[in-house]
Amino acid sequence: MRKVAVIGVGQTRFSGPQDKTGVELFAESSLDAITLSNLTPKDIQALFLGNVLGDFSEGQGMVQAFAADNIGAFNIPANKYDGACASSSMALRDAFTWVATGVYDIVLAGGVERAATMGTPLATRTFAMFSDSRYEYPCGITFPGVFALLAHLYAKKYDIPLEKLKEQMAAVSVQSYRHGLHNPKAHLRKEVTMEKVLSSFMISTPIQLHDACPFSDGAAAVILADEETARKLTDKPVFITGTGQASSGPLSSQQDSLPRLKAREISAKMAYDMAGLTPADIDICELHDCFSIASLIAAEGMGFFEFGQSGQAWLDGQADIGGKIAINPSGGLKSKGHPIGATGAAQVYELVKQLREEVEPERQVDGARNVMTDTLGGDGGTICNLILQRGW
Amino acid sequence: MRKVAVIGVGQTRFSGPQDKTGVELFAESSLDAITLSNLTPKDIQALFLGNVLGDFSEGQGMVQAFAADNIGAFNIPANKYDGACASSSMALRDAFTWVATGVYDIVLAGGVERAATMGTPLATRTFAMFSDSRYEYPCGITFPGVFALLAHLYAKKYDIPLEKLKEQMAAVSVQSYRHGLHNPKAHLRKEVTMEKVLSSFMISTPIQLHDACPFSDGAAAVILADEETARKLTDKPVFITGTGQASSGPLSSQQDSLPRLKAREISAKMAYDMAGLTPADIDICELHDCFSIASLIAAEGMGFFEFGQSGQAWLDGQADIGGKIAINPSGGLKSKGHPIGATGAAQVYELVKQLREEVEPERQVDGARNVMTDTLGGDGGTICNLILQRGW
Repeated sequence: MRKVAVIGVGQTRFSGPQDKTGVELFAESSLDAITLSNLTPKDIQALFLGNVLGDFSEGQGMVQAFAADNIGAFNIPANKYDGACASSSMALRDAFTWVATGVYDIVLAGGVERAATMGTPLATRTFAMFSDSRYEYPCGITFPGVFALLAHLYAKKYDIPLEKLKEQMAAVSVQSYRHGLHNPKAHLRKEVTMEKVLSSFMISTPIQLHDACPFSDGAAAVILADEETARKLTDKPVFITGTGQASSGPLSSQQDSLPRLKAREISAKMAYDMAGLTPADIDICELHDCFSIASLIAAEGMGFFEFGQSGQAWLDGQADIGGKIAINPSGGLKSKGHPIGATGAAQVYELVKQLREEVEPERQVDGARNVMTDTLGGDGGTICNLILQRGW
Repeated sequence: MRKVAVIGVGQTRFSGPQDKTGVELFAESSLDAITLSNLTPKDIQALFLGNVLGDFSEGQGMVQAFAADNIGAFNIPANKYDGACASSSMALRDAFTWVATGVYDIVLAGGVERAATMGTPLATRTFAMFSDSRYEYPCGITFPGVFALLAHLYAKKYDIPLEKLKEQMAAVSVQSYRHGLHNPKAHLRKEVTMEKVLSSFMISTPIQLHDACPFSDGAAAVILADEETARKLTDKPVFITGTGQASSGPLSSQQDSLPRLKAREISAKMAYDMAGLTPADIDICELHDCFSIASLIAAEGMGFFEFGQSGQAWLDGQADIGGKIAINPSGGLKSKGHPIGATGAAQVYELVKQLREEVEPERQVDGARNVMTDTLGGDGGTICNLILQRGW
């Protein structure tokens, strides 16, 4: 297997409803990535795209074919992946394999979504279809409810009073908003205090408004190349050294492990083993904070903190820049936003910019070498992790 | 790259609306494939699934995660692919690469759809979203209209009177129905005469009812393994020796080549070059006859007949068993049926059964060694071709 590097990245600003189509949004991010890679669209040999709700949000299925054609990457093989919120991570993992094995030298991967265009109520209802359609959402549960259940299980399992857990969750949101304020590509840029989080309206006890991420419109794109090609095109290649992925069935089939998500622990281990790293080696992690309780569960599942301890770690600044590990310096899904199929690729965008030390000084993590992504689709149905390392 | 073999296949009967969910249908086909491969579900290392309309037809997104869990292949990486009607071919091409490159030894690929459950009017409307959402279906065109336009272009370009073309197209349908009559897994099993096709009601001039395939419910599954593993598990491995895939944008961007589909010609060449074969080497082809005009265009695009000549070839029996090449001995999409995301995998099911000489005697092609699939998604947006060869 050849070494595979990210040589260029692009991202639109994440936002509320857009006039641009998904094809146009993806063009914006991918042409940026292609230009940054010193390439032109005709150099792209294949496209790997995450997109989940395109048929619902704008009536466009198979968007990858039109996206490739639109940027002038004519007639290339173009795949679309659906793993709910983990879709573009899945696309990236696949793209990695096609390059690592020598079939392609230069490929484009990424994701696009117009989730905000649907409006939150419709998007929430539609997106519930990514839980089990037999036994879960027909009972009326949507994802805020799923994560509220996980929060209750978490509080009970680790014997944390619910009021204390709410405070821990609020610390996650406050930190994310603080970083997103300095991210010009973020959807929600505002300062939010602990008090504001705790007094925001209740969505699904104990999850409050500011514990939840928004649905966003946006796109992100990543150019991957084999090492030899990469070294010719950039002096700052970022190597993908570990990839992991695992699936789960309905929550009922996960009950022996909940609130721990077994799929994440399997996926993360796969990525660590492949990269030859341990959690202690990771300097920055962009993880899937769709709800702040999801951040606590994720950080523990990837081994950054002991089980039941991550909320306190957030309160203590150990999950922040300068702490044990810098988590979501982009602002995360909470502030940067969550255009579902684009989220995994946007995590890679942030981490590559971080390693290149090209982000705003307020949220730059200095000297980072090893970084990691985490995306969670549905209620654990798909989890993907990627590990990237500075190549210079 | 290692050689990769198909060691087992499974398919549900294709049918009208089913009570079974997509997860249940896929279980039926995949457990058959696993059993035929002398494996158990815990041997499966990853799942690659095609499914297109699952969220519309039964409210189930990310069906692959639930499908893997349901058969007992717990926590494996599970990808879902959308390339419209080419989805499971895309999934198979990807699965092939993961095995060829040594990451996995044994994987499950396939597809599932409940297109019939939606009913033809809703499925036709919904599926139109797989054409261009900016300039095509908002004008009111659905796929029967797209293929009717191609038929007119075809007649004009090759100077074939429309009445003659209708007769040629009817010959495609008559042949498909004749083979499907002997396929116990086919959706529409009945004898249809040339007169019946030509007197069936007009859908979109010149396309009549019996020129069009049905929407079906169904699933198909394929087990892939590396050569060493395959030889231990079966004495009849069928090797995948060529894969091709290409994309196109809207019809407007394809106008220089229409009615020829450039993406197919690129994809087929990719597959031939990889396998080291030419069209003359192919004994059987399962091709994408969503409409009978599509069969004529496909057979020419893959090089089986001269451009403008394939209709006559069908009339002369040259596309039938005993002719130049046996096309769609399964009954094709026309008679076997078209559960969109499952169609590519079902083509592989048929071809593996043909190579093993395990199909009904009326439609068995004797002594075949090299076979090929062809699937077309949308109006040329995605085209995939696979070449398989007898390995004993």
